[in-house]
Amino acid sequence: MVTLAVDAMGGDHAPREIVRGAAAALQGRQDLELLLVGRREQVEQALEGIDYPAERLKLIHADEVIQGDDHPALAIRRKKRSSLVTALRLVREGEADAILSAGNTGALMAGALLVLGRLPGVTRPALLAVIPGFGEKPFVLVDAGANMDARSGHLLQYAFMGRIYARKLLNRPAPKVALLNVGAETNKGNRQLKKAFPLLQEYLDGFCGNVEGTDLFSGAADVVVCDGFVGNILLKTVEGLGRAVFGRFARELAGELSSPAGSSPVEPALARLRNQVEGAGYGGAPLVGVKGLCIKCHGSSQARSIEQAVLHQAYPFVRLKLEDLFLEDLREMSGCLEEKELPELS
Amino acid sequence: MVTLAVDAMGGDHAPREIVRGAAAALQGRQDLELLLVGRREQVEQALEGIDYPAERLKLIHADEVIQGDDHPALAIRRKKRSSLVTALRLVREGEADAILSAGNTGALMAGALLVLGRLPGVTRPALLAVIPGFGEKPFVLVDAGANMDARSGHLLQYAFMGRIYARKLLNRPAPKVALLNVGAETNKGNRQLKKAFPLLQEYLDGFCGNVEGTDLFSGAADVVVCDGFVGNILLKTVEGLGRAVFGRFARELAGELSSPAGSSPVEPALARLRNQVEGAGYGGAPLVGVKGLCIKCHGSSQARSIEQAVLHQAYPFVRLKLEDLFLEDLREMSGCLEEKELPELS
Repeated sequence: MVTLAVDAMGGDHAPREIVRGAAAALQGRQDLELLLVGRREQVEQALEGIDYPAERLKLIHADEVIQGDDHPALAIRRKKRSSLVTALRLVREGEADAILSAGNTGALMAGALLVLGRLPGVTRPALLAVIPGFGEKPFVLVDAGANMDARSGHLLQYAFMGRIYARKLLNRPAPKVALLNVGAETNKGNRQLKKAFPLLQEYLDGFCGNVEGTDLFSGAADVVVCDGFVGNILLKTVEGLGRAVFGRFARELAGELSSPAGSSPVEPALARLRNQVEGAGYGGAPLVGVKGLCIKCHGSSQARSIEQAVLHQAYPFVRLKLEDLFLEDLREMSGCLEEKELPELS
Repeated sequence: MVTLAVDAMGGDHAPREIVRGAAAALQGRQDLELLLVGRREQVEQALEGIDYPAERLKLIHADEVIQGDDHPALAIRRKKRSSLVTALRLVREGEADAILSAGNTGALMAGALLVLGRLPGVTRPALLAVIPGFGEKPFVLVDAGANMDARSGHLLQYAFMGRIYARKLLNRPAPKVALLNVGAETNKGNRQLKKAFPLLQEYLDGFCGNVEGTDLFSGAADVVVCDGFVGNILLKTVEGLGRAVFGRFARELAGELSSPAGSSPVEPALARLRNQVEGAGYGGAPLVGVKGLCIKCHGSSQARSIEQAVLHQAYPFVRLKLEDLFLEDLREMSGCLEEKELPELS
């Protein structure tokens, strides 16, 4: 049984959309059960009228809520009875395998570090995002926003974890791992990148060098490694630009193709494109490198995205025992790094 | 008269496309003259068959060429008779107001620093790019790739120069200047951004806070400030993603809308969108902060892009005396910064 603790109170459309999305996912997997954590009354109300297998859904009451603008670390320390902290504790105590939240990202990450702790071998956990390929296969981007000031050694750890994810969740038998950089040559980029390149070259099978922004969407790499600042900028830019280009295109075409009958022949194509642009297939971003899985969903997530995140991120991550695989790889990597006494990890 | 020295030998399609694009621009402005610098024979051959006002075009022979993979600083020092160094010298000696090159970017920047020198008040010159808005107005991105490890004080200098450019070249009377960051709140991002925010807030009129990737294309800012690493990643990602999304649209629609008559109703819309995506309107990126204007054109530039760069970047930049305006603003800014003895500039 895969047990998922859901922070029912986090997100713009909580608890209704969170709860309904998670409950819908129960239909998709028979060995999945949910612990919905939040204000009992509100969660019950959100469940009204939905069909779900009651034996696999449990309500855990938590009366406090961490708000979007709360200071992350303070909120985790003070709001001990919040839905988020309560859900994290369920994972820590082994009552749940994973937690899913669409709430305050900083709080989820602070909470993951404080309540769950890092995997041995991980200095900094990272947010892992799957970016749509727009014609090519999707690729992993890590770190998509957990740490703002990563050192070269952290990038190596992200690379290891990203590679495992690509192998097991995206079914890439021999994932190509690249560093996001400003040029293909080996001595390119800022100080962090110049140090990271030889590290990955030495320790990571499948390292294929640098990838530039222009080549992200031409299938050059399965895993793209960068620090959380650059990664988050990239993630949000892809989102914003995808939407802007799509919107412009829809407007340009509206002029060309309005048909008297009312429905434009281009609508099915636009709908497919919109799905790609909205990245609807993936739903959430796992925080990799902590003990126990944390999935961060977009604050504006609605039921469908939550359902996707449960079925396509949380469930397979646990089922495929990704954490154990991380531990193996990281143990091996740490051994090599310790021998070399590299200062890149701190 | 605006005199432009053109590095005729730099770029994938040099000298033919470079020379033809520059010569075409002469038709557009009567007070523009060109010094085409390169191997005389090859340049003359490239000019064959074109109509141009011969009194406003001069050939300056230079027999060496800096290659795309030459080490930038070494090339500048060793290939003193290259088209690039020769053209830079023309600017230094006052025989030209500006230089345009589609060749080795690193060499142009190393050459600009070595041969031309920085403007007083500028610690690091920056590459300034104009990014299409996809429905909104275009915006300035600076630094788009000159310096990989900028400090917060450099970002302030970029902001000043970017703002002047937006005012004079993009006709924004009161440009909004933002820091590219991962969240709107003041204490967001990495160490560099956390220090830059209060600097811009204190010294720069028109500073409107942070802008995230999602808002770049919603008209949030006229000028977006970042370091050269992030800027270059962003620039290339916009390019690559714009093309990928466009390509996917075109393919999706080809299926929906092939018409027996042969021409699809969607082609005009696609063509307009392609223009936007290719950013055809701007052609080149000025290097701001050096004595004398340097315009860097994309390595793959063809005649049309070169012509655009001459008419819409080089010519107006010189005509509107942007360098003098930079000097004024920077002088004022340096005064303030020196008083405070800020360590952010080094």
